[in-house]
Amino acid sequence: MASGERPLPFVSEDNLALCTDLYQLTMAAGYFENRLDQVATFELFVRTLPPHRAFLVAAGLEQALQYIERLRFNNDAIDYLRRHDVFTHMSDEFFDYLKGFRFTGDVHAMPEGTVFFSNEPVLRVTAPVIEAQVVETYLLTTINFQTLVATKAARVVQAAQGRLVADFGTRRAHGPLAGLWAARASYIGGCTSTSNVLAGAMFGIPVVGTAAHSWTMAFDTEEEAYRRYHDVFPDSTVLLIDTYDTIEGARRAARLDFPIRGVRLDSGDLAALSREVRKILDDAGKRDVKIIASGDLNEYKIAELLAKDAPIDLFGVGTEMVTSKDAPALGGVYKLVEQRSGNKVAYKMKASEDKATYPSAKQVFRQADANGMFVRDVLTTADDAQKGAALIEPAVEEGKRSSPPLPLDVIRDRAQEQIACLGDRFRALAPRDAYPVEVSDRLRKLTRRTREELGIQD
Amino acid sequence: MASGERPLPFVSEDNLALCTDLYQLTMAAGYFENRLDQVATFELFVRTLPPHRAFLVAAGLEQALQYIERLRFNNDAIDYLRRHDVFTHMSDEFFDYLKGFRFTGDVHAMPEGTVFFSNEPVLRVTAPVIEAQVVETYLLTTINFQTLVATKAARVVQAAQGRLVADFGTRRAHGPLAGLWAARASYIGGCTSTSNVLAGAMFGIPVVGTAAHSWTMAFDTEEEAYRRYHDVFPDSTVLLIDTYDTIEGARRAARLDFPIRGVRLDSGDLAALSREVRKILDDAGKRDVKIIASGDLNEYKIAELLAKDAPIDLFGVGTEMVTSKDAPALGGVYKLVEQRSGNKVAYKMKASEDKATYPSAKQVFRQADANGMFVRDVLTTADDAQKGAALIEPAVEEGKRSSPPLPLDVIRDRAQEQIACLGDRFRALAPRDAYPVEVSDRLRKLTRRTREELGIQD
Repeated sequence: MASGERPLPFVSEDNLALCTDLYQLTMAAGYFENRLDQVATFELFVRTLPPHRAFLVAAGLEQALQYIERLRFNNDAIDYLRRHDVFTHMSDEFFDYLKGFRFTGDVHAMPEGTVFFSNEPVLRVTAPVIEAQVVETYLLTTINFQTLVATKAARVVQAAQGRLVADFGTRRAHGPLAGLWAARASYIGGCTSTSNVLAGAMFGIPVVGTAAHSWTMAFDTEEEAYRRYHDVFPDSTVLLIDTYDTIEGARRAARLDFPIRGVRLDSGDLAALSREVRKILDDAGKRDVKIIASGDLNEYKIAELLAKDAPIDLFGVGTEMVTSKDAPALGGVYKLVEQRSGNKVAYKMKASEDKATYPSAKQVFRQADANGMFVRDVLTTADDAQKGAALIEPAVEEGKRSSPPLPLDVIRDRAQEQIACLGDRFRALAPRDAYPVEVSDRLRKLTRRTREELGIQD
Repeated sequence: MASGERPLPFVSEDNLALCTDLYQLTMAAGYFENRLDQVATFELFVRTLPPHRAFLVAAGLEQALQYIERLRFNNDAIDYLRRHDVFTHMSDEFFDYLKGFRFTGDVHAMPEGTVFFSNEPVLRVTAPVIEAQVVETYLLTTINFQTLVATKAARVVQAAQGRLVADFGTRRAHGPLAGLWAARASYIGGCTSTSNVLAGAMFGIPVVGTAAHSWTMAFDTEEEAYRRYHDVFPDSTVLLIDTYDTIEGARRAARLDFPIRGVRLDSGDLAALSREVRKILDDAGKRDVKIIASGDLNEYKIAELLAKDAPIDLFGVGTEMVTSKDAPALGGVYKLVEQRSGNKVAYKMKASEDKATYPSAKQVFRQADANGMFVRDVLTTADDAQKGAALIEPAVEEGKRSSPPLPLDVIRDRAQEQIACLGDRFRALAPRDAYPVEVSDRLRKLTRRTREELGIQD
């Protein structure tokens, strides 16, 4: 039963290894005790895209690779496992193995920022089966979440048609680490900045922010709040004008005898208010003052605001983006596709009625037309060659990263370029068609043969 | 612009202070430079409950208090801020202040596990305004998320009508820390176990798990996979039987010559399959073998399964619970309600049309009938006394915790007892009524007076 909590509020490098599902460790013990040391290949992919999505934006690989490199079972972790009911009868040998545990295998993956589709492996792990197994949970939660948010952000940014989008979501994210990673993923998806300071310090993302309602309310009058803010930040004064009455707030801002950079609206009918506020500012000669809008925005509301010609320059998007509110989970799975013992290769697939998989390590080739617009992807075996660009690259070789981390701007640029190559048909907020992902003859034949070998009925 | 990422994948104690929105720190600088040192009171509350919820279960306070106690600005944090555009002109004095920053104020809160309703403060901070301001983002993300999941878990547990519910959600949670905290919150909401090993090590939650499809697929035959698992875990053999064909898997399990504890179904028509599997097991004299079901379950699917008399003993619930999928964000807000400078008290409220608040520090009294069933809550000023039990208690006094952390089982028991006192009307999966939260005469008068003082129109 649960006793007092250990005063350690975080997932840290010290306790990475336990941040997994118990069955990964019972399976690890099972493989160990049965002396099973085959090399297994697992692939991480998404069977069905979330509603209204025709594409996904790969994100989270960097954090996944950092995990793989650092994964260790420290003494606390091993002590905990030794005491757990299910392991009490286990020999010291297994725990000694855990003490020396390192990930020694290979990882192949689509680079972050790659656009991908259902059934395409975004990551592949080839390693001794225990190593390949214990990393499953962390890889899934990391890549599922960042991909989910990068994809949602891409939708929001599409809807904003070139206006800037900032991430304001940490307070409604699923905890502080989710807020941090959502800032990273939404930048990959096309946002230009975040309010999360740690995301600036860790990832180099531009960080923005000015004042909240509590600032206005801390002073006797709204005008005093405006003036005092400007005293401290004369070059970056953005005023929140909706604390009491947005139009009155705008008139006060328009009358100020010092320069301001922008005003923010955080409530009410943003289309009507932004037009009124724009007119008040313009009439006062403050044409350069930007209008920032926030308050439960999402891609649909932004599209509607722009359809109504709302003169908004920057959208601050929070809750809906960082939780991917209309589709808050990505169903990425991590499945065994082949295993090797010595020279013997066995292809693997699961065949339960609603969850079938394709066997063998795979590659994805992307074919484009003369203008570079994506035409189709071909899913095939890893040793096959098809027309087009191969999307899956080495990321870790024998436990070492193949290359240093990519600058986040390179990742973000890749995503923007690839989304542009999708065309409106797949980029729309409500796409009608699925992007064509064809299965090669070679993979099709291998699948048929594997079903027969495993005795799976059609 | 974003450059290379710092190889630090986590939010840790070292970088707590930057895990906030930039505007908290610009406001802090604004208060500091303007020499504003009034004591501010902020309250954290939820204006509108998510759809289909008539109550919330308070969770996350423990992590919020750990944050408040440990919050420091280290040199890295201060260096980052000094270099940020918005702060480059600031004096050393402000950064010296940050170096010595400690939270020195008071926190009052509803203990975790308390059932609460819209507009009721679940936490109140009274501190010098800078301190009260900079903690906002972290407090919100922590309490919003755990409360969201505890509430969702309470719904799932209600639907299970006494069958056990385990959290299996980490892989679909919003990152590893979300998975960890979701395990904690879902235990508070009434789950009996989790698959998350770290949640066991840190919080003492019972941890469960056996094997995945990949275990079955690693062997030449399903029966060999079953047997090899039992060799390693003779006392805790639970078999996953749906890798190839659930009914065949069940027949194989029924024929085994060693004892098993349970079988797990993870796909297909769980109502029909569980009945068939139960019959196969019973016919083989294995009446003690439990049936565990998993696979995209939620409160509605569980209710439907039980309505069809599905003989399921334990539900493993993942994605839907840990993301609170039907309502994946809780709109908790943190609002200034009063401030004091010397003997002068100023009550504060926000009056923008769709986001009004009540002024002053508040207390909530809960009134029950002779059987202990909750009848109504009364929202009033903190210095008022009303009939019933006061729900908001001291949690931090002058920067020090008022009491040690509560055992998680005490929190969980409180939640279960309070949910039982709600009655079916508010506990239903689709409650028709809102629980009555009355505003006391005293608070009503103060609100009217404050509106007048602030010149807010009705």
